[in-house]
Amino acid sequence: MSAFNRNARGVYLITVTPFQDNGELDLASTDRMVDFLLEKGVTGLTVLGIMGEAPKLTAEESRIFVRQILRRVGGQVPVIVGASAPGFAPMRELTQSVMELGAAGVMVAPPNTVRTDDQILGYFDMVNETLGSDTPWCLQDHPVATGVQMSAGVIQRVLRQSPNCVMLKHEDCPGLGKLSAIQTAIGKGDLQPVSILCGNGGGLFLPEELSRGAHGAMTGFAYPEMMVDVVRTHQAGDVERAHDLFDAYLPLARYEQQNGIGLAVRKHLFWQRGVIASAAVRKPGPKLSAADLADIDRLVRRQTARLATLG
Amino acid sequence: MSAFNRNARGVYLITVTPFQDNGELDLASTDRMVDFLLEKGVTGLTVLGIMGEAPKLTAEESRIFVRQILRRVGGQVPVIVGASAPGFAPMRELTQSVMELGAAGVMVAPPNTVRTDDQILGYFDMVNETLGSDTPWCLQDHPVATGVQMSAGVIQRVLRQSPNCVMLKHEDCPGLGKLSAIQTAIGKGDLQPVSILCGNGGGLFLPEELSRGAHGAMTGFAYPEMMVDVVRTHQAGDVERAHDLFDAYLPLARYEQQNGIGLAVRKHLFWQRGVIASAAVRKPGPKLSAADLADIDRLVRRQTARLATLG
Amino acid sequence: MSAFNRNARGVYLITVTPFQDNGELDLASTDRMVDFLLEKGVTGLTVLGIMGEAPKLTAEESRIFVRQILRRVGGQVPVIVGASAPGFAPMRELTQSVMELGAAGVMVAPPNTVRTDDQILGYFDMVNETLGSDTPWCLQDHPVATGVQMSAGVIQRVLRQSPNCVMLKHEDCPGLGKLSAIQTAIGKGDLQPVSILCGNGGGLFLPEELSRGAHGAMTGFAYPEMMVDVVRTHQAGDVERAHDLFDAYLPLARYEQQNGIGLAVRKHLFWQRGVIASAAVRKPGPKLSAADLADIDRLVRRQTARLATLG
Amino acid sequence: MSAFNRNARGVYLITVTPFQDNGELDLASTDRMVDFLLEKGVTGLTVLGIMGEAPKLTAEESRIFVRQILRRVGGQVPVIVGASAPGFAPMRELTQSVMELGAAGVMVAPPNTVRTDDQILGYFDMVNETLGSDTPWCLQDHPVATGVQMSAGVIQRVLRQSPNCVMLKHEDCPGLGKLSAIQTAIGKGDLQPVSILCGNGGGLFLPEELSRGAHGAMTGFAYPEMMVDVVRTHQAGDVERAHDLFDAYLPLARYEQQNGIGLAVRKHLFWQRGVIASAAVRKPGPKLSAADLADIDRLVRRQTARLATLG
Repeated sequence: MSAFNRNARGVYLITVTPFQDNGELDLASTDRMVDFLLEKGVTGLTVLGIMGEAPKLTAEESRIFVRQILRRVGGQVPVIVGASAPGFAPMRELTQSVMELGAAGVMVAPPNTVRTDDQILGYFDMVNETLGSDTPWCLQDHPVATGVQMSAGVIQRVLRQSPNCVMLKHEDCPGLGKLSAIQTAIGKGDLQPVSILCGNGGGLFLPEELSRGAHGAMTGFAYPEMMVDVVRTHQAGDVERAHDLFDAYLPLARYEQQNGIGLAVRKHLFWQRGVIASAAVRKPGPKLSAADLADIDRLVRRQTARLATLG
Repeated sequence: MSAFNRNARGVYLITVTPFQDNGELDLASTDRMVDFLLEKGVTGLTVLGIMGEAPKLTAEESRIFVRQILRRVGGQVPVIVGASAPGFAPMRELTQSVMELGAAGVMVAPPNTVRTDDQILGYFDMVNETLGSDTPWCLQDHPVATGVQMSAGVIQRVLRQSPNCVMLKHEDCPGLGKLSAIQTAIGKGDLQPVSILCGNGGGLFLPEELSRGAHGAMTGFAYPEMMVDVVRTHQAGDVERAHDLFDAYLPLARYEQQNGIGLAVRKHLFWQRGVIASAAVRKPGPKLSAADLADIDRLVRRQTARLATLG
Repeated sequence: MSAFNRNARGVYLITVTPFQDNGELDLASTDRMVDFLLEKGVTGLTVLGIMGEAPKLTAEESRIFVRQILRRVGGQVPVIVGASAPGFAPMRELTQSVMELGAAGVMVAPPNTVRTDDQILGYFDMVNETLGSDTPWCLQDHPVATGVQMSAGVIQRVLRQSPNCVMLKHEDCPGLGKLSAIQTAIGKGDLQPVSILCGNGGGLFLPEELSRGAHGAMTGFAYPEMMVDVVRTHQAGDVERAHDLFDAYLPLARYEQQNGIGLAVRKHLFWQRGVIASAAVRKPGPKLSAADLADIDRLVRRQTARLATLG
Repeated sequence: MSAFNRNARGVYLITVTPFQDNGELDLASTDRMVDFLLEKGVTGLTVLGIMGEAPKLTAEESRIFVRQILRRVGGQVPVIVGASAPGFAPMRELTQSVMELGAAGVMVAPPNTVRTDDQILGYFDMVNETLGSDTPWCLQDHPVATGVQMSAGVIQRVLRQSPNCVMLKHEDCPGLGKLSAIQTAIGKGDLQPVSILCGNGGGLFLPEELSRGAHGAMTGFAYPEMMVDVVRTHQAGDVERAHDLFDAYLPLARYEQQNGIGLAVRKHLFWQRGVIASAAVRKPGPKLSAADLADIDRLVRRQTARLATLG
């Protein structure tokens, strides 16, 4: 079984948070989603990320949702919880609470108030102090969402000062060069190995990232089997086949990664696949138009046809 | 006694959140701060604002702090609670909780994800729905903090569609023109009267704002008596005396409004005045250097001397 | 022959600016690029856009480059010149200069200092005054680059107040909904018809945009024949074939649209196709690594193979 | 006579660009402004800064204006020209042009596209290459305008790699700590001495900055004699008198530093003082209302009275 440590490989899927049509948490759909993702072969789950509508949940709802996920997963794969917060007291509280419930670790991105290299390093000193020595964590590098640009050099310094940071979620764009720089440092022994999972544009550069040495993906997509298959095929050495698979899903993946309506597209597809009972997104959030739905139908139909030709 | 409604006047002071040296909430200092502010003549309190380090508190700490404030105030003046949140479920939860404890209302600023006029109007539709018909609220216009530019026209439209929005906290800079535009609309009967309190740059334009028709101030400063006296004197018609008082405090007020270290300056001054037992600011937060403290000592000494000449 | 007016259709290609290896303007390559693009069937050219490295040219270089383009085009297709500027004196000077040289019109995006609907409308009033009554122009809606969010409603108001604004370059993301709203207004007669060309993410949503009523594309890509063929096929009614073509190019188009290195990828491909003599990008600008080049080689090889299967 | 080098002291005034009522350059007022500023005792001039409306001038107008300034100054004090530009070709062209005309050097701020420490250092490497070995220059640290946060450490590294960077225009807020850090490095011999002039909030922290070791001010204010007198008095050791003078001007200086209308206030005051023939600001730019003018009248009257009491 996979574990959340420096050797983590594969696909950590970022889950959605299922709601009922009336906006309430949908725990039955939560269970179904867990079963679906495990069946598709993910090696980990990440919950309460941006695409999990975390800021729209009350503290109590967050706890209930994480507990439900952990119960259903039952230790089959590690579960990481997003713990980015503007203050360290809420970060500590959430971390302690989810670790007690059985989470494997947490994920932290810098807040948009830190800018310079010194501020970034100072911030993660405080994160290490907050999380303590028993919580493994994942560093999220996601400048589009955070506004914080971390150079390859700074990421290395954060990793060096953070013995419990076992994973880098690499989500910068253009990030291929940054990925290469970090892998080079590890290769030279300048940096302890760390698991590097990619999420650049929702996996839109997955095959190229794998070629640069990424160990897998951490992102969301309504067809997690794409990422599982691309990673497995690529790691087995069949790079062309990995590209073939990726290309077949790319038109829909691109559509699902649109700013604004992306989450609604993803939930619609999960609903259509029978995973969740409602595609509801909490306000403030996007709604799909008839034209959007027609686009999706066409793309799914074409994707199915294309996959059939690949065998 | 003053009430939180469309006729509110005077100074709603934005409180700090007192901590002990070890970072724990300091409830004894909280009581002392309430007594101090009431004695200085504030007509309302606003808690859990940005300068109240709200995002650094756990949900439980927020509740404890608000309850302590409300108990000590004991209904002598209205207390407003900052309820801006990225999602409506946490906003509803916090609002219900503090209204049950006895708060007079809440204050809401738009999140930095809304940009266009339509998005702003749509957002406040949802705020009204979230707060319900029993919670009076204050619209906070603070583009420096939120990144959201609300024109005078849009503010009027928000006010028109929001029967329970009884107060505008006007904090735009340059905002004097905006203030004039809103007062003109009220004067013409195009807009129902609303209480307008100002916080532009921490009150750094208070006399000019009062001349444009503002009804008072809502901001923080370690010498709340300045704002109380300036508002009272100005409203009594002695505009030159109001400027004299304001000018005497301006050098220190300017220093306390510096980005970055401002909150530390304010807490240091509250500590020096015996209001709170510790000047501690929670991480991530600023610390004062010896040179900063020397600056403050000089400015306080000069302020005291200047006030003595005013009689 | 196509003209730059409300009936413009097809592909307005945003050109690069060719440099020699030493960074000097390369006018021979400029001529070759014009020939190449005309041969591929573009219906217009747009020069001095962001991807044309306009801010890195001196005023004199800009004039020389535009003159060279116009001479070589010789009136075969309209040429539009990017004229966005922080001040109106430079905008007027550049516009007069290029119109005298034979440009068909200019393109203007709002500067990032305008935010509210009122500011946007006020800004374009001044643009209309600056451009005068003889210069047709294209409104560029590109919030990722400008930071300015123009709602569908505001775009309609700008179009209504701008008799010479004959084209909308629609580049917002998610923009499909905005596109639908504008087409609906035109359909109802609420808005005079206007040519709508799309550039969303470098054409990454081109087939969907055409289905919503866009009249073509205005963007850059090293394979302009993709856009020409997709637009032609789609407008001929063979939507599935348009998607087939689009999908074949999508993996490379996605790679060329990466933030940061995108322009270097495009120039490398133009160089590889024999269009320009050097792939040089002026500083500050990106450089491609060996790994980037390997990615590109693979993607081009796969694209060629895929196109072969389409016939 | 003062020179633009590492020993520069005093006040480098950032000039406005005078226009006629019809928006044309006003060269007669330009001469009068030069005479006025020299008479008030400034030790240098800085032209084509943000407050000089540089982006609203055509390239030709910029040259004419700089030439006029330089002719009138006639070598009595050094003149620095703002040369920040998004590309290096325009920066080189402008620099060569103004140095030939007799400018003492240029001032450069980083563009808002550089973020990380590495990007900042790389950018100024290219600036040094662009400016060449004969052009002394001033590094402008102005994060509010540029969005670029340069830590004290990075500024030191830029200064070390830039032998011709002889001056730091320190304009960060809160910047007192940064100023102290750089002075400490110079004191320890870790950094070659450099002239440090301040502009924090338009000189709103001038006395405190001088106490931290700043050598003077570089900013604009309609009463340049305030800065000249504060710097001279402070450097003569009479710190209290320096504060007295500063405090007398602070209410008006604060008003002139308002975002948005500040430049219009400054030009109005220059006009009122007989320095320039028109207070015109080029579009897009602010206009003063009757209420603004009434504010200014009151503040000037009070300032005059207060100065009279100081003797």
